[in-house]
Amino acid sequence: MTFIEQLDAAGQKNDSLLCVGLDPDPARFPAHLRGRNDRIFEFCAAIVDATADLACAFKPQIAYFAARRAEEQLEALIAHIREKHPAIPVILDAKRGDIGSTAEQYAIEAFERYRADAVTVNPYMGRDSVDPYLAYPDKGVILLCRTSNPGGSDLQFLDVGGEKLYERVARLAAGEWNTSGQIGLVVGATFPAEIARVREIVGDLPLLVPGIGAQGGDVEATVKAGRTKQAGGLMINSSRAILYAGTDEGFTAAARRVALETRDAINLYR
Amino acid sequence: MTFIEQLDAAGQKNDSLLCVGLDPDPARFPAHLRGRNDRIFEFCAAIVDATADLACAFKPQIAYFAARRAEEQLEALIAHIREKHPAIPVILDAKRGDIGSTAEQYAIEAFERYRADAVTVNPYMGRDSVDPYLAYPDKGVILLCRTSNPGGSDLQFLDVGGEKLYERVARLAAGEWNTSGQIGLVVGATFPAEIARVREIVGDLPLLVPGIGAQGGDVEATVKAGRTKQAGGLMINSSRAILYAGTDEGFTAAARRVALETRDAINLYR
Repeated sequence: MTFIEQLDAAGQKNDSLLCVGLDPDPARFPAHLRGRNDRIFEFCAAIVDATADLACAFKPQIAYFAARRAEEQLEALIAHIREKHPAIPVILDAKRGDIGSTAEQYAIEAFERYRADAVTVNPYMGRDSVDPYLAYPDKGVILLCRTSNPGGSDLQFLDVGGEKLYERVARLAAGEWNTSGQIGLVVGATFPAEIARVREIVGDLPLLVPGIGAQGGDVEATVKAGRTKQAGGLMINSSRAILYAGTDEGFTAAARRVALETRDAINLYR
Repeated sequence: MTFIEQLDAAGQKNDSLLCVGLDPDPARFPAHLRGRNDRIFEFCAAIVDATADLACAFKPQIAYFAARRAEEQLEALIAHIREKHPAIPVILDAKRGDIGSTAEQYAIEAFERYRADAVTVNPYMGRDSVDPYLAYPDKGVILLCRTSNPGGSDLQFLDVGGEKLYERVARLAAGEWNTSGQIGLVVGATFPAEIARVREIVGDLPLLVPGIGAQGGDVEATVKAGRTKQAGGLMINSSRAILYAGTDEGFTAAARRVALETRDAINLYR
């Protein structure tokens, strides 16, 4: 089954467009986890188990693991998801981007070492920096297009001959780069008008939309701008608002409550 | 001492603009190293020891380590360089790029975990994706500008209001983003005219130029286009041509010979 088929099936099964982002910051963990060596795994696995019937995907952010020498915990976490919740695809949020020979190594990292179903990739280096990921036929490749951060506009909003740079990336990603139907795009929830514009350009291509929750994006505007007929066409990511909803031993129940509310809030506007 | 001061001092000490890239591919290692658990470290450390008096910097490419679960060998390699060759700065080639809170984690990875002196960063997400690295005042941040791969032109060569996107990146990097003088740029050797154009825009800002050797860039054209009065203003990277110059137990001598030839070929045109 391809990543896009998995995403579609998980979205239907759980009636959900919610992607649960796993950005584990030990300083924000409940006190009872803090002393443990495997606390990053334990925290994330508990969040996963509490939300797996509410999510269409999980998205671990590799930087949070790499900063703490916790690659093995990331491997264990993805293995846990694949074993306990095999219906839910895993997007490794890594935003890699490099020349072809190096991109091949990053593709090995994402797809062979971590066994992720999809990976986020930066398009700045162009098509041959994306191709090595596409060589894995069942995997998804989600390119940065219009990011949710304040500086996202610095380059992405520049006019490149009658369209913005992010529109050009969307056209390339949906068009000549997407020879095998494996590509999706990251479009931030902080810019709903631009989600709508990207949707216009790319048809039903899967959009991963971060920026609701801690980053302040509006759910209604995001869903209305990004929705498609296909369940797998839209993933709305929330990380910190779910992960840190609780601060004590009840953190999984708190995370579940916020995930449920978020899923349902999204579903109001589909 | 800041990264740029280190680079300048190492360049003067070794009369060198050569950055030795460490892209360890075990499939290309000499046979006698192949069975060893620490072969990636052993191979790279041997190359480092054979070339440390010929280089202005070492540049390990993290993808080659991450693909093989060899983060500990990368830590050990950088520790080895810092202990045995403390005059030579280490550039971690990671090309990270993410929103501020995640970029903080990547900065911890590069500067606290690996203790690199500089890191390569992708500018696509804009200024706030770069700032967290600049919060480490002695460290260098080398932004992708004009990359050496064929697809480099797909976005970087687009016209953005009278200049190319890579020229805009160069202007931002040398201008409003560079509040603390820590920024450098990656400009590929496969495009000497564009090295010259970037040099025109950025003055003496350090340029890291990959693409000679295996990628086919011309040394004379590269040096003439990129040279400055300051030793630290130009680093010309060669990886595979040095690393894989030999295929047997004499690989360090072969690497040294190519590094020496490359350093001297560069120095002909300074």
